[in-house]
This record gives sequence, structure tokens and C-alpha cells, in this order.
Amino acid sequence: MRILVLGGDGYLGWPTAMYLSAHGHDVAILDSGVRRQYDHELGSTTLVPIESLHSRVRVWQELTGAAIAVRVGDLMDADFTHEVIRSFGPDSIVHFAEQRSAPYSMIDRKHAVYTQTNNVVGTMNVMFAIGDIDRDIHLVKLGTMGEYGTPNIDIEEGWLDVTHKGRTDRMLFPKRPGSFYHLSKVHDSHNLEFGCRVWGLRVTDLNQGIVYGQETEQTALDPRLATRFDYDAVFGTVLNRFAIQAVLGLPLSVYGGGTQTRAVIDIRDTVECVRLACENPADSGEFRVFNQATECFSLAEMAKVVANTFPGPVDIEHVDNPRVELENHHYAFAHTALESLGLQPHLLSDTLLASMFHVIEQHRELVDVEALRPTVNWRRTQSSPGAWP
Amino acid sequence: MRILVLGGDGYLGWPTAMYLSAHGHDVAILDSGVRRQYDHELGSTTLVPIESLHSRVRVWQELTGAAIAVRVGDLMDADFTHEVIRSFGPDSIVHFAEQRSAPYSMIDRKHAVYTQTNNVVGTMNVMFAIGDIDRDIHLVKLGTMGEYGTPNIDIEEGWLDVTHKGRTDRMLFPKRPGSFYHLSKVHDSHNLEFGCRVWGLRVTDLNQGIVYGQETEQTALDPRLATRFDYDAVFGTVLNRFAIQAVLGLPLSVYGGGTQTRAVIDIRDTVECVRLACENPADSGEFRVFNQATECFSLAEMAKVVANTFPGPVDIEHVDNPRVELENHHYAFAHTALESLGLQPHLLSDTLLASMFHVIEQHRELVDVEALRPTVNWRRTQSSPGAWP
Repeated sequence: MRILVLGGDGYLGWPTAMYLSAHGHDVAILDSGVRRQYDHELGSTTLVPIESLHSRVRVWQELTGAAIAVRVGDLMDADFTHEVIRSFGPDSIVHFAEQRSAPYSMIDRKHAVYTQTNNVVGTMNVMFAIGDIDRDIHLVKLGTMGEYGTPNIDIEEGWLDVTHKGRTDRMLFPKRPGSFYHLSKVHDSHNLEFGCRVWGLRVTDLNQGIVYGQETEQTALDPRLATRFDYDAVFGTVLNRFAIQAVLGLPLSVYGGGTQTRAVIDIRDTVECVRLACENPADSGEFRVFNQATECFSLAEMAKVVANTFPGPVDIEHVDNPRVELENHHYAFAHTALESLGLQPHLLSDTLLASMFHVIEQHRELVDVEALRPTVNWRRTQSSPGAWP
Repeated sequence: MRILVLGGDGYLGWPTAMYLSAHGHDVAILDSGVRRQYDHELGSTTLVPIESLHSRVRVWQELTGAAIAVRVGDLMDADFTHEVIRSFGPDSIVHFAEQRSAPYSMIDRKHAVYTQTNNVVGTMNVMFAIGDIDRDIHLVKLGTMGEYGTPNIDIEEGWLDVTHKGRTDRMLFPKRPGSFYHLSKVHDSHNLEFGCRVWGLRVTDLNQGIVYGQETEQTALDPRLATRFDYDAVFGTVLNRFAIQAVLGLPLSVYGGGTQTRAVIDIRDTVECVRLACENPADSGEFRVFNQATECFSLAEMAKVVANTFPGPVDIEHVDNPRVELENHHYAFAHTALESLGLQPHLLSDTLLASMFHVIEQHRELVDVEALRPTVNWRRTQSSPGAWP
């Protein structure tokens, strides 16, 4: 299949592009490079050094013989987006190209507006290009489990059968997300479901859990093929951060009581889920939602797993929760769709954690301890991460 | 109370501003004038001539002694929005200032993106200004009944008690709207509900039905206080259009089978609903939703009411439905909240229709018959209303 990966220079986009290429697909990447710009803005960096996108695809071709075409530009540029999709002629478009940090979206008004505009308009530009060019192109769009929030009922995969006053309907699962970033994904989902209805688009919305891990079979081939490893309080995800704290001998910082529960997924499962979605496209007019997560843990449980696995003493500390969220809540979610397509989940095991500890050890001198401290407070309309004190 | 009316120069914003002023409130208007610009773009005009905003408030003060302050500018300008809210210091903000036409949002990509950006970012700028300045300011936000779409269950007022697998929750009512415009209001609702949770905002979301009528007690005081009367296929609402067709001896153009059902409300009830919402504010942290509609009719039923009321022969014709929507569907909605606050609905009666026929008679020579023809097709990604043939 011909597969265009939007955001193919990012933490997950790059391993996904290689994984699809390794499985024989003809892959192209569109990326604006803005993820690297966020680092410049915040003064943060990936723990594991990464090559430029052009260097990455050159090394990939040297090692495997497979070419990955690259187009650098922004989905906000509708003409560029249209031209890339028209000229590449993909069967599937995998869309990672959104601002993906909740704290970043909560910094202040400008970051909230940027996140929603960038994500929603970028996705609309892709929808319109597909609507213009070829409505059979299957869009595989990254959403987030955070779209659902923490309802007191079980979370189904995007849709809910509702009975009310003796009548029934299959309705979009009600969403109540926890940041302007998560809201942007809810907006996308509504826009895309509409596109399926009016234009007969084929869309798979992958509501992904928090991804952990930094190695896939492809990134491990050569250090120049490594993907990002973010640990800062803005872009770092919680398990990666805990692993770094353990290696450095710092206490694992659990926000609030730590009973908040998150859905999670191993990076090796992420790339496989995307492949499964591409190779089993949604029907014409179908808005299909998969919950792309395999397990859930409370923050305190995650901290305990990391502490128990790490070969050395680990302290756990509770810090004021910078987020506004329920800490004691029901959490159960369906995740059978991808497994029924063949996903065999990697569960949070000491194997992967051990490999993460090893990666961190190799780069421990690069860690900026200050970057681990949460600087964005949900209760305020303005925070200043990366600013002088 | 001090009440700031955003979009106070529009079809409903202007009658609302006068109504609140007539009820003793201290009213100010913020408006960018963009509604008049849409007329220039599309080559359409209001059937009833209207004065400039500055002239309107001057006449209002001459006739009643009450001042209405005016600030001309755009909610997309965050600094301006912040400054106006800070300097006026409102108790309530009534927010009409959005692009409000479904067909306009479906013209093409640029109009879709404009509608969502303008509406969502404008509202975010208002939220952030309230969050910065005074979280007790009550935001009364115009939504639309179209946010709900046409579910096969009864529509409740914004929230739904859901029981699923033995557990229950009160959830946001699932939305499945029918245009990029309606989607923009769904996005607003989600953003605002979040603002209530994280910042303790007070928000009333008024999910309004299709408004009909052109006269309120205040607009009738003087021709210079008239509000718009739109009849073109882009901005004109269906009942107003039918009334014009009847007067001109043209067939009433029903889209498709005509069994699609719409919630409606009399313009005199709109202004009263907004007053009731302002005078009975939402609690701190409460996202309150009222369904601001009093009756519902299928398009065919509306056409029949107009035909039966008009003192002359009226034909009804069915034209291809330019929209993508269910034509045969369940439709029932709760609308008790505003009535429990004191609303006494004007139902669709020959009294109001007779006054509409009279207004149209007076201006019949101004009607551009071509403008009645639908030019925006939901199935296409590009239509060209107002372009040369």
C-alpha cells in the first residue's frame, strides 16, 4: 500500500514510518519540523539524540534499501497539503501531525489557541484534500483516550448504544476531556464523523493511551534511527519520566494522590496498531473508532512498577497536582477491536522497563533535572515554562 | 445589571440589546460589523433596511433616554476583547458574535475553516478574558439545537443520564451536527464545559432553535430601530423565506421530502430567554444548557402553516435537498428549563405571520428572487454562491 505519514518526524511518527516501510509498504512522510521547534521554545531536548529527518531516511535506505520520501511543510498550508496528497496518491494517510502535549496547550491563551487551531484546521485541510482528490483514501487519525475523560460508566470504542425513555440509538460516546489539547482531538473526531456522513470518507480514529518505551525493532537497528525520548514535564509522558527519575536516584514525582488512572500502550504496539488499521481500512462512510491502549494503571501503580523493577532503591513522592482532574474515579475501557484484528499486546513488563533503564543510563549526563518539575498549572490562565525564574 | 452583548449589531443581537436596555439593564455592544460584510461578499441584503450601529444606538437614546455603549472590534483580537471586558466590567456577557449560517460554512474549505476558527477562537478569547479578569462574570452563549442532530432518542437539555452495564453517569448529551457551522458550536460547548470545570466559570449555553419573525416591541418603535430580515438561501432562515415566497406569489421551496423536522422559536421569545438567563445566572462552575426553542415542525408542516395563513393562493414545491440529513427521523426535545424560569412562549400563530406578510409587502420591490435559490451543496467541497453564473 502507499501510505503517507503526517508528522512522520515525531516520537511515534518516525518509528511508525519505518515499521510500515519494513512491512513492504511504500511510505512517504510529511512533517513541518515543529516538534523540534517546541524544544527550542521550551529549552527542553530529547534524552536520546536524534538525527535530522533527511538523515534518518537516508540511513534507513542505506540499511534496508527502502526509500521513504520526505516533504517538509505544514498542514496549515492547505495548498501544500492538497498538492502532497494529490501527487503521492496514498491508499492510507496516517495522521500524527498535531500538537500533542496537554501541558503545552494549557500554558496560556496563545498556546491553547495555537493547539486548537493547528490541530483542527490541519485536520480539516486533510479532510478537504481527501474530499477533493479521492474519497477512498483511508484516513487513520491519532486521537487519545483522554478524549473520554473519566466517566463513571465503562468506556466503549467511540460509540455507545443508548436507551432513553424507551427508545434506542447508537451515539458517539460522550466526551469530557481534560485539557485544550484533548479538546482539540474531540473537535477533530466530531468534524471527521461529519465528513464520513456527508462525503462518504473512510476514517479510523485511534484513541491512543499514553505511550511508553523508546525502542522498536527498527529504531534499534542503528543509533541514527533512534526516536525521541522526552522526559520534561511538558512533553514527557509519565512512565518515561518515572524511569528517568529512578535511574537518576530522584524520587518518582506522582501528581496529587496518584489514584488517577491512565490507559497506556507500549510503543511497539502503537506501530503495530497503525499497520493493522491501514491494512484493514474502514468502509466508505464509516467513522470507526479503536481504543488503542492495552492496560490501565493508576499513577501510584505505575510508580510502584517502576520502583519494583529498578535494580536499586527508589523513593516515591507526591507533588501538588498541577492538573484539574478527578483522582478517585471509575476507569474501565473496551479495547477489543485492534486485538480482534490481530494485535498481540506487549504488557508493561520488566523486559521493556529494563531496556528503558539501559537507554537512560547511556545518556544520563544529558538530563536536565529542572525540566522534570511541573510548571504548567491548569487553574491559572498563564504559566511560564522555560521562562527565567 | 451590566450586560455586554457580543454581536449586538446582528439579527438577534440588536433586538436583544434593546430589550435588555428597556428592562433597565446597563447595556454595551461589541461588534465587528462582519455580518454586513457577508452581505457584500454574497451580494445579498436584508429585506428591511437597517441603520448603522452608531445610528441605531443614537436613535435608541433619543427615544428612550437609555444609552447603549458601542465598541467596534473583533473577538479574534484577544487584546481588544480583554480590554473591553475589563473596562466595561459586566455582570453578564451575552455572546451572539459568531458566524451563524450553516450554508455559509459549507461553501468551501476557506469558509469552513473561517467559521470554525472565528467561532471557536473568538469564544476562547472570551473565556480567557473572563478567566483573567473575573470568573464570576456569567457567560450566556448562543448555541443551536442543530448541535444535537436528529438522534433516535429524546433530546434533553445538554446533559443525559446514562445507564450502561449497571453503572450510571450524567454525561454531556452526545452531539452529531449537520454542518461545519453546527460543529463549531459543538466545539464551543465542549471548550466551555471544560472552562467551568477548571476555572469555575459560570456558563449558560442556549441551544436555540430556528428563529422566525422580524419585530419586537423595541424594533417596532421606529423604522430606524429595525433589525435585519434575511431571506437569501445562505443567511435566510426557512420560515422567513417561506413568508417572502408567499407574498411574492412564488412557490414555497421545500428541500427534499420535507419531513425533516426543525425546532423553532419566535424572535420575541429569543430576547426574553436571554433576559431570563442573564437575570438567573448559572452557579460558579456550572455548565448549564437550556434548549431555547418552543415548538417543532417539519419543513412541509411549516410550508402548510404559511400557505394556510396567507390570504391568497400559495403553491408548494419540492426541490433537491442541498443538505445531507435524515429526512425521516424521530424528533422530540425537552424545553422546560426556560419555561420554569418564566418564559411564556409565543407559538407560531397567524398573528406573527400576518405581521411578517405586512413587513414583506412594504419592501417587496427589494426582493432579489435569485437569492432564494439554494447554491451551496453539502455533497461538494466547493460551491460558489454569489459568483457569476
